Amino acid sequence: MALSQAPSQAVSEDRLWNRHMALARHGATPRGGVNRQALSAEDIEARRTMVGWARDIGCSVFGDELGNFFIRLEGSRPDLPPVLTGSHLDSQPTGGKFDGVYGVLAGFEVLQAIRDTGQVPRRSIEVVAWMNEEGSRFAPGMMGSAGFAGVRSVDEIIAVHDARQQSVAESLAELALALPDVPMRPLCTPVHSYIEAHIEQAPVLEAHGVPIGVVTGIQGKRTFRVTVTGEESHAGTTPHRRRRDALLSATGMVQALERQCFDPLDITRFTVGMFRVEPNAPSVIPAKVTFSIDIRHESSARLVELGDAVTPLCLAHAGPCEVRVEELSTAMSLEFPESIRSEIEAAASRLGLGHMRLLSAAGHDARYLNDHCETGMIFVPCLKGVSHHESESATPADLIAGARVLAEVVWARANDAD
Amino acid sequence: MALSQAPSQAVSEDRLWNRHMALARHGATPRGGVNRQALSAEDIEARRTMVGWARDIGCSVFGDELGNFFIRLEGSRPDLPPVLTGSHLDSQPTGGKFDGVYGVLAGFEVLQAIRDTGQVPRRSIEVVAWMNEEGSRFAPGMMGSAGFAGVRSVDEIIAVHDARQQSVAESLAELALALPDVPMRPLCTPVHSYIEAHIEQAPVLEAHGVPIGVVTGIQGKRTFRVTVTGEESHAGTTPHRRRRDALLSATGMVQALERQCFDPLDITRFTVGMFRVEPNAPSVIPAKVTFSIDIRHESSARLVELGDAVTPLCLAHAGPCEVRVEELSTAMSLEFPESIRSEIEAAASRLGLGHMRLLSAAGHDARYLNDHCETGMIFVPCLKGVSHHESESATPADLIAGARVLAEVVWARANDAD
Repeated sequence: MALSQAPSQAVSEDRLWNRHMALARHGATPRGGVNRQALSAEDIEARRTMVGWARDIGCSVFGDELGNFFIRLEGSRPDLPPVLTGSHLDSQPTGGKFDGVYGVLAGFEVLQAIRDTGQVPRRSIEVVAWMNEEGSRFAPGMMGSAGFAGVRSVDEIIAVHDARQQSVAESLAELALALPDVPMRPLCTPVHSYIEAHIEQAPVLEAHGVPIGVVTGIQGKRTFRVTVTGEESHAGTTPHRRRRDALLSATGMVQALERQCFDPLDITRFTVGMFRVEPNAPSVIPAKVTFSIDIRHESSARLVELGDAVTPLCLAHAGPCEVRVEELSTAMSLEFPESIRSEIEAAASRLGLGHMRLLSAAGHDARYLNDHCETGMIFVPCLKGVSHHESESATPADLIAGARVLAEVVWARANDAD
Repeated sequence: MALSQAPSQAVSEDRLWNRHMALARHGATPRGGVNRQALSAEDIEARRTMVGWARDIGCSVFGDELGNFFIRLEGSRPDLPPVLTGSHLDSQPTGGKFDGVYGVLAGFEVLQAIRDTGQVPRRSIEVVAWMNEEGSRFAPGMMGSAGFAGVRSVDEIIAVHDARQQSVAESLAELALALPDVPMRPLCTPVHSYIEAHIEQAPVLEAHGVPIGVVTGIQGKRTFRVTVTGEESHAGTTPHRRRRDALLSATGMVQALERQCFDPLDITRFTVGMFRVEPNAPSVIPAKVTFSIDIRHESSARLVELGDAVTPLCLAHAGPCEVRVEELSTAMSLEFPESIRSEIEAAASRLGLGHMRLLSAAGHDARYLNDHCETGMIFVPCLKGVSHHESESATPADLIAGARVLAEVVWARANDAD
């Protein structure tokens, strides 16, 4: 193997694919998907596997107090801020094999390819797996990247509880016990730039037959938690006029929100994904409903309007119940710097790979890193655009194409003169 | 104590109240209620307490293959069908101290009062605790009485599973292991008559300041389970036109059913008490919703109309989802025999207790026993009519008044000439 070989030529399609299949065993579901929620036993086992791979190729590993996980390939100037790449290892409860994992494994494939060529970059290159991107166990998501970038405080993050009343703090203690030989580093360390590779989670690239998406930015998103409180009583004896039925009020709110968010252009994304009823027994009038609202729009102005309508609309449909609306996260639409977008395009062109620009409809850790350092994203197609589903799929050829572009951009940035 | 003292004079208000407080410890909740679901560890412990009390006063205990539990005071003619009284020991997940338990303990107080007077009835008198009246863990409820009366088959009942996929059959095996010294009897044995005492679970007696309700019958009830199947996908990337959101369809169905069941006279009872979403994660479009429907009406004709509208209405609001509607139970309105109603009235009058006739809005095990033998019910007031709630309450004076009427009726029937 020539010392001068470009890392983008040294990446291995088979190795990258096999690593996806290996990690998919941690939390594998009977229907071929993955249930590997943040800081679960399965998430910890996936990290253990990554630690082994990292040490096999002579890289060091680090953690931090929010459970972010780093694999470092030391550069010739270890004093300089590193080039960072990666994504997340946690999944939705019925997620797939590629969402998040791809960014971590593509980054790791780049490290190994550089090792294989025998070259040493000027800057160190690090692969990161951010803690709890998905937000399904602990809401809201992107906790690790938000904490790393200083957008949310550690105290606020570690106080969040899951549905079983276990806190992030308790789960982080379990992680530390399980992987005691991973040294800890501070949060908010300087980073030269951050490039995240991810499956598109939408069908645009597939529809255009283009393997590389140059991500221009991320659409805005506001999330809410609505708590409707009524009173439980007997389904057979309580007359309508005396009922305070939390489920009737909550379903009315959901229907009203759906009408409010209706968009003939089909750009608005409105979702109630979580809806929990208490006591949830067939012959008891529900006393309490807690539900989530997720609204996204590429126009920040429209997002502000839609989000600001949530509280008045819920109040208007509360009927005899009490209602509390909390906004959990507010993220306006953002644009990545033109410099990185152009570099990704140029790299894809050099490699002879088709590319197109697109906006990310999904949120990613890159949102928060964009506040911390120069940031960009590379998308690859996934089957029918399906994600957050056990049938999520991508081809080995598309995955390696994205990893080659990532290798070009990371290698160039790690060796630039600044 | 005179041998000729009437059992209705020998019942003890304190003893009856203290037993309510003692049983309420099995499944006690922090807010003063009871969570003692059918065949749970708490239900089994409550039975164990009852076994001890029964043996203390020299009564025998029996079980049957559906987990019904009997305490028998042997009469001088043990060959004759017994007079049966009782109710159930299981509760809603956030239930109170009196629903069901009262009927069992009032019956047991009658047995002990008869013992205390030193008299022996002609017929045997038995107190029963029916298995799973509430139907919150295993749906539908009133399983034990339905099986005893031959209305539902044993095979059908024991195949039902709870939300954790444990079957009634497995739970019955646990019960048998926990209480191995309770001998088993066959189902469907002949019964002379069945009298059930119960808290009213509605505010009519309290509003009229009347301690004794003479129950004329039970309003009809139809219950359904609706399963709405859509497709899970990503909340940020999936456009509205491609969504198959099970929660949006299901909330539309609930709102449409509520409008359909609206009744200006406020006689119809319509409740969706259970509503379960999968995967129930904030940023995943729901793939599946399962919800319960409970419709009750004192007019059987109106109940038929309302129930028959459920399936077409759900289909009309299915949108892009699939929907399956199963009717779980169908019970038309019923009337108890006039003979028992008159006896209850006469007994209350003899004891100087105010009484009024009323229809039971709630379902009770007496529904199925009415198909098996002469059946009646006695109601006592509960605070504000609240039931299926941890704050459920009743006064010691009202509870003992009902027990005195019960003692009169049971004693008379046990000694009648037939």
